[in-house]
Amino acid sequence: MPRKKRVPTAAALRLRLRVEIEGGIALGPGRADLLEQIAETGSIVEAAHHLEMSYMRAWTLIRDTNAAFREPLVVAERGGRRGGGATLTETGRRVLDLYRALERESLSATRSTWSQLRRLLRSPA
Amino acid sequence: MPRKKRVPTAAALRLRLRVEIEGGIALGPGRADLLEQIAETGSIVEAAHHLEMSYMRAWTLIRDTNAAFREPLVVAERGGRRGGGATLTETGRRVLDLYRALERESLSATRSTWSQLRRLLRSPA
Repeated sequence: MPRKKRVPTAAALRLRLRVEIEGGIALGPGRADLLEQIAETGSIVEAAHHLEMSYMRAWTLIRDTNAAFREPLVVAERGGRRGGGATLTETGRRVLDLYRALERESLSATRSTWSQLRRLLRSPA
Repeated sequence: MPRKKRVPTAAALRLRLRVEIEGGIALGPGRADLLEQIAETGSIVEAAHHLEMSYMRAWTLIRDTNAAFREPLVVAERGGRRGGGATLTETGRRVLDLYRALERESLSATRSTWSQLRRLLRSPA
């Protein structure tokens, strides 16, 4: 599921992981959500819509992300019922899985220290 | 050392941890750097200068961060040679240590998965 903007009602530790490369960003939370939505919807238009992002923005992010990896992560298909869908390549699925694994590993590793820090907050819950 | 803005020459995994509370942020990379600089310099003016931040911005961040925790993290001292210094309280040092521990734990836990992801980049080094 893509990250929703929300007002937190309890203290939360938020984590943002970004893969930086020479000249820019290869992957981050927004691009990971976009890949996930493309995998779910099979469509750049629908993925962009779900993420409240313009089609042009989604397309630019995909182009830049594809260029940052050895192999493209997303392939667009011409024609078809919806005027062309899009799917993740095997590399795309692998990159998305690894990115989500990084997030899980990071949250898991910090659980104990976070509970110590949380107790020092004025309103931890 | 505070985080410097730089152009990466090799792929890097960047991590940003943010403690969110109802109504805003309690702690993040910028505030952690500010606490660290206050601990090192003993002065809000100098800390702000090192971080290329206005004094007013630093002061506002400290006020909001102090308010987010059960006890203040920074206390300002009136008078003295430099017209008033500032130091971290015991809680302030503890919060900063815990925040840096979260960063280390997170980076350490993701090392293996990050090396797998890195190999899929076009220019990993």
